[in-house]
Amino acid sequence: MKPQQKKSQYTLAELTNGLDEVTILGDPQCVISGVGTLKQAAPNQIAFLMNPLYKKYLANTQAAAVIVSQSDAPECPVNAVISRDPYYTYAKIAAYFADKPIFNAGIHPTVVVGANCEIDATVCIGPYCVIGDNVKLARNVILGPGTIIGERVTIDEDTSIDAKVIIYYDVKIGKRVQIFSGTVIGSDGFGLAKHKGQWQKVPQLGSVIIEDDVEIGANCAIDRGAIEDTVLERCVKLDNLVQIGHNVRIGENTAIAGCVGIAGSATIGKNCLIGGAAGLNGHISITDNVMITGMTAVTKTIKEAGVYSSGVGGLVTNLEWRKSSARLHRLEQLNQRVKVLESLLEELIERKDS
Amino acid sequence: MKPQQKKSQYTLAELTNGLDEVTILGDPQCVISGVGTLKQAAPNQIAFLMNPLYKKYLANTQAAAVIVSQSDAPECPVNAVISRDPYYTYAKIAAYFADKPIFNAGIHPTVVVGANCEIDATVCIGPYCVIGDNVKLARNVILGPGTIIGERVTIDEDTSIDAKVIIYYDVKIGKRVQIFSGTVIGSDGFGLAKHKGQWQKVPQLGSVIIEDDVEIGANCAIDRGAIEDTVLERCVKLDNLVQIGHNVRIGENTAIAGCVGIAGSATIGKNCLIGGAAGLNGHISITDNVMITGMTAVTKTIKEAGVYSSGVGGLVTNLEWRKSSARLHRLEQLNQRVKVLESLLEELIERKDS
Amino acid sequence: MKPQQKKSQYTLAELTNGLDEVTILGDPQCVISGVGTLKQAAPNQIAFLMNPLYKKYLANTQAAAVIVSQSDAPECPVNAVISRDPYYTYAKIAAYFADKPIFNAGIHPTVVVGANCEIDATVCIGPYCVIGDNVKLARNVILGPGTIIGERVTIDEDTSIDAKVIIYYDVKIGKRVQIFSGTVIGSDGFGLAKHKGQWQKVPQLGSVIIEDDVEIGANCAIDRGAIEDTVLERCVKLDNLVQIGHNVRIGENTAIAGCVGIAGSATIGKNCLIGGAAGLNGHISITDNVMITGMTAVTKTIKEAGVYSSGVGGLVTNLEWRKSSARLHRLEQLNQRVKVLESLLEELIERKDS
Repeated sequence: MKPQQKKSQYTLAELTNGLDEVTILGDPQCVISGVGTLKQAAPNQIAFLMNPLYKKYLANTQAAAVIVSQSDAPECPVNAVISRDPYYTYAKIAAYFADKPIFNAGIHPTVVVGANCEIDATVCIGPYCVIGDNVKLARNVILGPGTIIGERVTIDEDTSIDAKVIIYYDVKIGKRVQIFSGTVIGSDGFGLAKHKGQWQKVPQLGSVIIEDDVEIGANCAIDRGAIEDTVLERCVKLDNLVQIGHNVRIGENTAIAGCVGIAGSATIGKNCLIGGAAGLNGHISITDNVMITGMTAVTKTIKEAGVYSSGVGGLVTNLEWRKSSARLHRLEQLNQRVKVLESLLEELIERKDS
Repeated sequence: MKPQQKKSQYTLAELTNGLDEVTILGDPQCVISGVGTLKQAAPNQIAFLMNPLYKKYLANTQAAAVIVSQSDAPECPVNAVISRDPYYTYAKIAAYFADKPIFNAGIHPTVVVGANCEIDATVCIGPYCVIGDNVKLARNVILGPGTIIGERVTIDEDTSIDAKVIIYYDVKIGKRVQIFSGTVIGSDGFGLAKHKGQWQKVPQLGSVIIEDDVEIGANCAIDRGAIEDTVLERCVKLDNLVQIGHNVRIGENTAIAGCVGIAGSATIGKNCLIGGAAGLNGHISITDNVMITGMTAVTKTIKEAGVYSSGVGGLVTNLEWRKSSARLHRLEQLNQRVKVLESLLEELIERKDS
Repeated sequence: MKPQQKKSQYTLAELTNGLDEVTILGDPQCVISGVGTLKQAAPNQIAFLMNPLYKKYLANTQAAAVIVSQSDAPECPVNAVISRDPYYTYAKIAAYFADKPIFNAGIHPTVVVGANCEIDATVCIGPYCVIGDNVKLARNVILGPGTIIGERVTIDEDTSIDAKVIIYYDVKIGKRVQIFSGTVIGSDGFGLAKHKGQWQKVPQLGSVIIEDDVEIGANCAIDRGAIEDTVLERCVKLDNLVQIGHNVRIGENTAIAGCVGIAGSATIGKNCLIGGAAGLNGHISITDNVMITGMTAVTKTIKEAGVYSSGVGGLVTNLEWRKSSARLHRLEQLNQRVKVLESLLEELIERKDS
């Protein structure tokens, strides 16, 4: 393992070279040696502005340059990189300064490899990995230390799996997938049949398919299917500690924040956004382009694109919360009182009119 | 490690042999080579119907046979296996087609074993496991690669623990227990005493007892007790990413879905069902036969069997959710308006009557 | 690895020696050989009483001695250790009976150590750990089996990291930190920029700083910063399965219960308490001395100390819950009915008065 070979500094012109829809306002030869936040950047760093929350730091930024939208550019006190999409432009520029160490040492001698494996000569595998029988690892696959790959797993090219990931048997993983440490893929779904008062285990005979360009965070759990496979379509992005039940299918480009739990046999469309710690019932389906806000309980199928939430929200003091809760549970009484008023009033009016 | 020796196909008669309360309507000699869903089954597969959601697929199923209830049997277009409990019957039949690879290679030479261990000759231990001192592993115990077993742990016969499980010292595990990868059992409970403004760690002197036939999913965390032990009674079933605090006791046959968190010293009865991502306060108790719906906050002791939920539910658009939240917090005003109406009306009526 | 050398029993006088604000009522030479709960303690054990829930067990306790407050002392039927803070006193006394096995065997021969590491001679590292290049491990650091330490990580003295922890590159860990198994520190934050309908990964260039005396539970995930570092200040305490997003800063002495998720760029003050399974939005800040109750959605910045909750609570039967939910969504109708009543009544009164 050694750090990627990179230059330690670049001119603005170099950093923006090849980027569409980007113009430099100021000195293209300005030298940048890293990234910083608007508020904290050092004078040799580049920052960006996208979230309006942070605009207050623009006027006094010490950054050498700031990536901004056209509309924020006039207020930028330093070199400006004007972009239609400052966060995207930042992502491309920041990549020049990434210093994630990479393995490039081949297969460590401690790796235990099963029978009949096909492992490309370019594959790197860290110490103490265990590879089951009949595994296929394609070009440029990287496995961090202590990762376990089950029997008959296939991993396609340019996929990177960090330390201590567990991939159970028969799982199929696509190209350019990235999986962070501690994640478990392909453990049994939670299939139980109650018979005469006792739980009987239901065999989980499906597997998991992870398509190209998927990213999966740390310490997630993705169960294998009961009959068919659990599927994460291309470009699905999962944050940390996400639970995916058996038979779930997640449509392409859908992003799921941390601590979300998705129960078995749910189907999620394309381009959805699921907020942190939301929970989805089993056997429901969600159409494309749905956004679920954080901590929402998705209890039923969603057929129209849009933004959805559950229950009532609003952060309040605990005292107000207790009152609201009590009022809610007294709502029926209030309803009865209004009914009484209505009939009394009707009677009065009738008497009056008669 | 090698796949279990199984036949690749069976007749319906073979598959149902020995099953109670099951009858075949059609050809008992029909050959089955796997399982499928009603919707997707190939012509050599067997499917089942239990959830009414999927009944719409029965008429056009391509399956060779379907496991159905008596009432659905007349509509089954192919061979029917009629059962009083189709899901249970499916579980028994599907077991013929399970192909989870099993270890049967003894103790891998890389395993580090502590002093004074008693390890039965039939035990299989994968590469890079570490076994502490004074550990007892009974007949047919299987430990997946990279699993860590702490000092003085005992694991009873036919228990299977997958890769990368961590069992801390002194934990006791029963017979036929199944634990999936990444789970941690016996880490310290969250015991802190605040003294003069600083947290003081409270030693966690209890352990964890996992009784027979318990199943524990992937990446769970089960804390050791503070004084007495944390206990999962026989046949408790946990899904993935479940958190069990110190001193918790879970009664037999209780099943807990993914992402549930149970705070310290809670006691849960027998035959309970806890829905996904529910949370239980510490120091409360729940009687037998309680069902908690998903994402419920269980804030107090439950003394009567039944189904419980918290707050208000209902998935709505985010716009409606904002309105409901606002209305709820204006409820006190509405209440005041009704009070005014009541007194005005009372006055009017008195005037009228006088 | 071998158990700590401890005596197996102590007199009350020994156990309370050096403790402030503690007095013995009874026999200081009473011999204690362990701890127990008030309800279950054996006659040679010491118990404590703090939570009033358990006071009912005081009268009949079999314990040799009980640690109690001044006010509970008169009702203590056995030797009493009177303390202004019984739980803290218990914590100090219980430490005499802790029997967590400790490593003291140096660096196991299977450990893979990178280039240019500085590892103090007192460091203990369990089997199958992997240490990256340029790592610094200070005096008395302990690493459990199978732990992975990334490149350029520094770990300060007396820090103890249990089995199967993953520390990514560049993370800095202070003194006396304790990290339980399965936790992942320094994986990439969930940084994604959508560009022309596709997710583009945003490089995560910050790291994680864990200050002195922090405790982190099992299977947590703590992301590295996007630009600046994610920071856990001194004495922060995390329970299990906690998710900390990128750029989060948690103030000193703040304690966070299990299953909490904190989204990126949130800032939490000092001395806060975050209840189990609460969720915090990104980019918000919480001032010092805030308590968040369990399962609360913290959707906005909190500027005043106090206790906060969200939505409405109250555990009810599922039937009542369905009714409340329906009533809430009919609240607008109720509001309209009250409006009608108000105008009718106004009209009536006008007519009357005219």
